[in-house]
Amino acid sequence: MKKPVNLGQKLSLFSEQWKPKIIASYNGNDVMVVKIKGEFTWHSHADTDDFFHVLKGKLKIKLRDGDVELGPGEIYIVPKGVEHCPVAEEEVHLLLVEPAGTPNTGDMATAAKKEYL
Amino acid sequence: MKKPVNLGQKLSLFSEQWKPKIIASYNGNDVMVVKIKGEFTWHSHADTDDFFHVLKGKLKIKLRDGDVELGPGEIYIVPKGVEHCPVAEEEVHLLLVEPAGTPNTGDMATAAKKEYL
Repeated sequence: MKKPVNLGQKLSLFSEQWKPKIIASYNGNDVMVVKIKGEFTWHSHADTDDFFHVLKGKLKIKLRDGDVELGPGEIYIVPKGVEHCPVAEEEVHLLLVEPAGTPNTGDMATAAKKEYL
Repeated sequence: MKKPVNLGQKLSLFSEQWKPKIIASYNGNDVMVVKIKGEFTWHSHADTDDFFHVLKGKLKIKLRDGDVELGPGEIYIVPKGVEHCPVAEEEVHLLLVEPAGTPNTGDMATAAKKEYL
């Protein structure tokens, strides 16, 4: 019997924040889980949309033309090139999808290293 | 204030089975919810991986070299070209990601028409 990826089990394996963990691959995209708390930096991705799916907690994504707030079971896709700044007052667990190699800050110089989990 | 996509709300809008509903777009991929019950047909996608995320219920994906069973909060990505057959004994709610235009049966002649929700 093959095994699926269990998101809760993957999230139980680490506690560090702001370090995306790759849990699967889809057509050259990294499917990742991450824990975040606090405010990120304003950034954009010139070449890709940014897929956010909240698994736990409340996430605010600040946008220049109006914020969006997401709770568990909610998705928001920031379009390519659009500046955004994720904010989590309490810890938030996210499922992310990004093309492999995409820097989370929009800049390889400051990006977190993504690890396989 | 912008609105996220609420998966539960989207799923409350329809009851028909086997008709994927497009709820968002990510880099040319359709992000969809679907309700299924019963056994699908064996098929494969020559050009794309197939992303399954179970939101509710228990899904079996039959594969030629061993089945995989998924519950809520579990993901399985069927690699490109791999024959598979989804089976749901009771109704299952899924989040799917596929390149826009991908036929759900692997064949445009028999594919369900995907609608925007």
